[in-house]
Order: sequence, then structure tokens, then C-alpha cells
Amino acid sequence: MPIKDLFQEKLKVVNIGLESFRSGLDHGGAPSVQVDWRPPVAVDAAALKTVQARAGDIKKANAKAAAKVLAAKPFLIGLEKALDVIPGMKKDLILHAGPPVAWERMCGPMRGAVMGALVYEGLAKNPAEAAKLAASGATKFSPCHEHSAVGPMAGIISASMPVFVLKNEENGNLGFATMNEGLGKVLRYGAYAPEVVQKLKWMETVLYPALKKAVAKVGRVDLKNIIAQALHMGDEVHNRNRAATSLFYRALAPAVARTAPDPETAAQVLEFINGNDHFFLNLSMAASKVSLDAARGVPNSSLLTVMARNGTDFGIQLSGTGGEWFTGPAPVPDALDFAGFSKKDANPDIGDSAITETAGLGGFAIAAAPAIVQFIGGSASDALDHTRRMYEICEAENTVYQVPALDFRGTPTGIDMVKVLAKGIFPVIDTGVAHREPGIGQVGAGILSAPPEPFQQALVGLAKTLQEENS
Amino acid sequence: MPIKDLFQEKLKVVNIGLESFRSGLDHGGAPSVQVDWRPPVAVDAAALKTVQARAGDIKKANAKAAAKVLAAKPFLIGLEKALDVIPGMKKDLILHAGPPVAWERMCGPMRGAVMGALVYEGLAKNPAEAAKLAASGATKFSPCHEHSAVGPMAGIISASMPVFVLKNEENGNLGFATMNEGLGKVLRYGAYAPEVVQKLKWMETVLYPALKKAVAKVGRVDLKNIIAQALHMGDEVHNRNRAATSLFYRALAPAVARTAPDPETAAQVLEFINGNDHFFLNLSMAASKVSLDAARGVPNSSLLTVMARNGTDFGIQLSGTGGEWFTGPAPVPDALDFAGFSKKDANPDIGDSAITETAGLGGFAIAAAPAIVQFIGGSASDALDHTRRMYEICEAENTVYQVPALDFRGTPTGIDMVKVLAKGIFPVIDTGVAHREPGIGQVGAGILSAPPEPFQQALVGLAKTLQEENS
Repeated sequence: MPIKDLFQEKLKVVNIGLESFRSGLDHGGAPSVQVDWRPPVAVDAAALKTVQARAGDIKKANAKAAAKVLAAKPFLIGLEKALDVIPGMKKDLILHAGPPVAWERMCGPMRGAVMGALVYEGLAKNPAEAAKLAASGATKFSPCHEHSAVGPMAGIISASMPVFVLKNEENGNLGFATMNEGLGKVLRYGAYAPEVVQKLKWMETVLYPALKKAVAKVGRVDLKNIIAQALHMGDEVHNRNRAATSLFYRALAPAVARTAPDPETAAQVLEFINGNDHFFLNLSMAASKVSLDAARGVPNSSLLTVMARNGTDFGIQLSGTGGEWFTGPAPVPDALDFAGFSKKDANPDIGDSAITETAGLGGFAIAAAPAIVQFIGGSASDALDHTRRMYEICEAENTVYQVPALDFRGTPTGIDMVKVLAKGIFPVIDTGVAHREPGIGQVGAGILSAPPEPFQQALVGLAKTLQEENS
Repeated sequence: MPIKDLFQEKLKVVNIGLESFRSGLDHGGAPSVQVDWRPPVAVDAAALKTVQARAGDIKKANAKAAAKVLAAKPFLIGLEKALDVIPGMKKDLILHAGPPVAWERMCGPMRGAVMGALVYEGLAKNPAEAAKLAASGATKFSPCHEHSAVGPMAGIISASMPVFVLKNEENGNLGFATMNEGLGKVLRYGAYAPEVVQKLKWMETVLYPALKKAVAKVGRVDLKNIIAQALHMGDEVHNRNRAATSLFYRALAPAVARTAPDPETAAQVLEFINGNDHFFLNLSMAASKVSLDAARGVPNSSLLTVMARNGTDFGIQLSGTGGEWFTGPAPVPDALDFAGFSKKDANPDIGDSAITETAGLGGFAIAAAPAIVQFIGGSASDALDHTRRMYEICEAENTVYQVPALDFRGTPTGIDMVKVLAKGIFPVIDTGVAHREPGIGQVGAGILSAPPEPFQQALVGLAKTLQEENS
């Protein structure tokens, strides 16, 4: 073909490798195709065949499950003590992040947090006694996720802890999360020193009653609205919650001033929230939880309702397989380590906070929060790439949560296990990193991909369920 | 050249016309050149020759002036009554937005605001009497900018009004602005009904003392820090101030709770600010003002220290020509009109708020706030294009104010009149639109370019100053 003809043709590009070059072309309007050359993921052949044979049913089921997630209306409706509201909560029960794990296999920071919680509850006099108690079998453990609850990092919830009560007003289901403790030495990173327990006591006796009254005064707080606004304000509501915390604070501060026992208490409560840009994290997690719980139990669906880590295992659940956990080893995040720490100090991935990614937020919405990528050494276009990639493994685009830099496109929402395996693209999670020893705290922040094993197992699990239905 | 050689060469692109295609190429790493085919701006030939002959001196002077703007440290240090702190303020004096304008030439909304202010001051019993008084010559008028002050839209400041007091701690100069009244019927859009005056009285008797005490309690508020954060949170602090208002509110709420006469007053003050996402606008304007005032009076500098509009004229000032105004007709913004209004209802451009653009914010930072462009029908890439274009007419890039979507590049800062005329690229301003009749209010919001006349006149003015120095 003569050169002049070549240039009269519309440009068509096949790009192999770095996606950032393609994103530039997209921007300029030239059509292009990204060729994926990632190695295929090994899967159980029989399970794959079973699932492929039911592709049509799965597709319909996923659409139904995703619609439930999109339609969710998460509201904060109050605060209560965990024992009084969390289903199945007991005085000798400790809820934790991630899939089930016994004391023997618990990672350092989770053990530390359990020890702190037992001291906080008055069940042990000191951390050593607490460790003995926890190992004795007298203390029971259960995942937050099995009690409509979520917790960041170690994710420990004990009976006396105050929790936010959320309601998905579309579906009627409730959800629960503790209040965020702030930065420094905190229980969720495995710290258990006396000042950690002391702060938890202040939260129980001062912060909790003040916020409880303030929420009662305003009636309820529309968390979906706050999250939607926050995504327009540089948050992805997992590792960055500055805007969401600000908006929540704005909404409640007048009520705090009106209902606090005295002005000094009102000021201290406001200062506590103002001093912690992550205060909203536990609310964004619980909002994600009540949204996803509405999508549980859709027969045949391969949509994820949970991704969660206990610092030892990474676990997922599917809508179509109920409460069954599919797990694999939790990876160590590729992290930017805080000064004085290195990767060998890092605990494997931990926390229920990946519920935000499961709901189309966090790493899936990181294009809305380029400051996070910059913090760990990336660029704004890296953030765009992460979010763009997640559309490939999601069932839907969010109708309310949007990414301004992608011309307000809805965030990729509803992870499809089948697409994840078929494309070899694993969910991106941006997360904090805990020290692997108990009692130390946060040592970094970073981005990681979910590991393959839980997805490989989930394929087998879903195939089994499909076959049981048929039989 | 054979086709294969062509494809081994690095791609070089010459783009004529739409810049958005080029921005895509930039993104992908392909080098390209934007050919500017805007019509050249007609300028005074003799003045041009004088200015060109001193290009070296002007360049040095602009670097010096821009360094002053970048080094500025604007802090809110207190609140006072206008009469007590604004230099030259008098009981019979009304300060207004933009360059000087007599009552006879004042646009509708400015007249309305003057009438409201005279009633508020008790100098007239009703709007009709106020109009008579204003026309009689007994009331004096002067631009805010000539009193270290700024005001949005009509920009009216009268003697009893409380004002924020700002200090540029790097340079020592002070600046002033009223508190923002919120939305609906407000003085700054020319409304003067009894409820408008009543709200101003509430602001004077309740809001002002509460905020004055709260600021005294915290000592001072770092506005540069708030603005820098807000640019990471979707604001450009002219037409979008949601994040900056939130951060300001967070910083002051505990002090408001502590110092208010009673909890109900504290709550009402917080509710007032929470109800108005533009509350920070007057602070971002005053912060821009004290930053730019530090750059005044650098001999030979063609850097703008003011862009301001009174609804009749658009005026600018240069660092090298002191307090001299260069003016031209204020254009009517190309606006998205609110329901029930059309372009024929729109008043020509009005307000001191273009001081934000003069300081590298507002339209110059609109890439940080794509929601604004979306609001008026554009896309995120349009927002990027606006900001990218402004680098071509600016002396510097801000060292603190950054645009996340441009990989945290500093905002274009320090408009050079010579570059504006040489390139035919006029400053972009995003602004609210007032109804042309007094008493009605806001009818739209939009983006406009500064008109050419003030720049053409400023060239002549600078040439004259250069010649006077030489003689």
C-alpha cells in the first residue's frame, strides 16, 4: 500500500506490554487493543468444564448479585455496644479479621490485638496472662465477616467495644464496625500497651456516648452520599479517607456541640476525629459490607461478596457458595516501608479492609486518589491504569461512585471469580502494612494483588455447588 | 523512504488545532508540537518596541515578582470590623469589586448590593432611599483592591461589616475579606431584601464574635496549607471550595465548641458554615490577595498583581506599574444558566474573585477540579487542557499548590502580560454569573477568558513607565 493511503486509514494500534502507552492512545481517541500476555492461571479442568457449561446461568446470577450491590443504601443509624447488637456476640468471643484462624496460626499483630482486647475486657490482668488465656481454649474466635461485621487490620471486636450500626435501607440488613482508633500505637496494628487500652476506654466512655447522641440527634447519616462525594475529593476510602472523614465530621459536629455533656467534651470529641484522617475507614468498610451482604446467596453467582485477610490466610467468599471460605496464603504487600523498617519486618496482608475493593472502592477506585500512588512512588497514570484494569474482572460499573479523572465513569464493581481466572488479572488492593511482631504497629503502606489460590479453590467450590443443585 | 524505515523512526507529531488530541499523545510519551494558529493580538507598535528592547530587565523583574508570590505565607490571624482595620475605611465609604466605577456606571447587581449595604449600615431606611443617597454623591466609592481587600461578585464592604484579617507572614502585609454569606438571596449577587440585611446582622452579632474567639483560641490558621490540601481534594478554590471549607471547619470546630457563649450558638455557627460549601471562597481570595500584594512595585515587571471586574469594566494591574488600572469592557461569561434564566439575563463578569486565577488558582488550577468543567458540560480532559494552556502565559509553577492529575505539577502561577499578548492566550477564569438586575441573584456559572483590552493598555502603560525611568 502506498504511504499516502496508509496515512488516510484510521490508525489502529495493537499494544503488547505496558498499558500506560495504550492509555495515552485512548486519551487521544485512537482505537487500540491491549494484548494480554500474562501466563494463564492453572485451574481444575473438571471444575472449569462444569462452570463453563453453566456460563449463561452464572452470567444472569452475577447480574442479579451486582444489581443488589449497586442498589444498596448504606446508612449509619446509631452506635451500640458490640454485645448488644452483633449477632452471636458473647463475652468470651473475640471477632477477628479475615477467614477463620485459631490462636496457634494467628500472626503476631493479631495475637497482640487479641491480648490487648482481653486486657481491655478485664478478662486478663496483663498481656502475658492474656496470651495464656487465648491459648487455653477458653477464649473463642470467629471472623467478623460471619457476624455482619468488619474490622481493619487485626479487626478485633470484643464484647464491650462500641460499634457503629449500619443499615442497608434498600435490603434491610445491618452491619457493624468499631470506631477507628487513630494513628500511632493502636490495637488494630497489634499494639497492646497500657496507653492503647486506656485510649479504648476513653473511646468507650467519652467518644461513644457523644457520637451515639449526635447520631440520634441527626437521625441517620447517608454514607453512600459521603463516599460518592469523597471520590470526587481525592479519596478511595480505603487508604485515603481525608475527605470522607471531613464530610462526616461536618455532618455531625453541630449535633456533637448540642448533645455533648459540656463544651470541653464536645471539643475533645471533635479534636479526636479531626486528628485522624482515617476515622471514616471503618464506616466505608461497614458500608461496603452491608452493600455486599445484600448480594449473598444468589444461586450460581461467581461474584465475590468477601475478600478478607487474617495476616496468615487470604480468604474470599462467593455469592453463589454462601458462607464457604476459599483461602490461600496471604501475600506480603510490596510496600513503601516507613523509616527504620524493611520488607522483612512486614506481616503478610491483614484486615477486612479489602471489603472496600470487593465493593468497587479502595484499589478499584484508586484513579480517584492519585496521592496514594504518589506516596508509594507511582504516578497519576499508574493510578488510572490500576482502576482501568479492574473493569476487566468486574460485572458492573457503579452508578453512584465515580472517578473524576475517567470522566466520572462509575468505579469497577462486583468482582467475578471466573473473569479473574480467565484473564489472570487479580484484584488490586491498596493497604497498610503491620509489623509482623505484636505490639509494634504500622511499618508501611502499599499496593498488592490478591493471590491466585482462593480463586482457584472458589472455582472448584462453585462447580461443586452447581453439581449439587443439578443432582 | 520505505515503510519499514518509517515505522522504525520515532514518531513525531505536529498537531494543528484541537489540543485534546495532543494531550493524549503527551500521555503516551510521543513527542509533539502544538501549532498555535490563534489570530495575533493587535498591539501598540511603539509600546511593543520599548518593551521588547527591555526584555532582559523585564524577565529578571518577573522572576523576582513571581518569587514573592510563591514565597507568600498567608495566615488567617483574626476577625475585626472593617472600620477598625481596613486602611482608609470610613463610615461613608463603600468598597466594591473591580476597578474604580461611579454609581452612574455601576451594573445592576453592584447597585443592589450598595443599596443593601446602606440599609444594613442604617444610613438609609429602605432601598429606594439608599439609591437616592448613593446617587447624591454623599456616599463615596473605592475599589476593595485599593484597600488591601477583596470581595466576591459585587464585593461590597461597608464600615460595620466584620472582615477576616490575613497576614502574609513572609512579607508582613495584611489583607481583608468579608465572611461569605452562603447561597440564595445574598448581597454579593445584588440582593437587598430585608432577609438579606437580617442575615448580615446575624453574621455581625453571632457568627463574627464566635469565629473571632475561635481563631483567637487556635492562634492562627495556615491558609496555604488548607489550599494545597484542597487542590488534592477536587477544589480549585474559586468555584469549588467544598474541601477547603471542610478543612477550615475541621480546624476551627473544636475551638468554636469551646469558646461559643453556649452550645446552641456553637451549633448554629457550625451549621452555617456546613451549609455553605463556598464559605472558604473569601479566604482563598484574601490569601491570593496578600500573596500578590507582596509582588507589587517590582520595577519593570509585567507580572499581573490584579485581575478584577466590577460588572462593567475588567481591570488589571501590573507589578511594574503600581496602582494603575488598565481596563476594558467586562465580557458576559459563556455560562451554564440556571433553570429559568438565559444569557440575556446575565450580567457582565463581576467580582474580585479573579484574584485566585491571578495567584495560580481558580481557572488556572481547574485540572484539579474536573467536577466544575463537568457541571458546565465539559470533560476531565477539557479541565486538563485549560490548566496546561495557562502554563504558556505564566512566569512560574507553584511550589506548593499542585494538580494531582498532572502528576502533582505545580499550578501555573504569575501571569505575564507580555506572554499573554505574544501568544494571544488570555487568562481563563471560572466564575459565577449574576443577574443583570439588582435584587435577583445568581443565574449561572461558567468559564470565560479575560478580554484583550486591559492587556493592550497595560503594554502601553508599562512602556510609558520604562521610558519615564530612562528619562
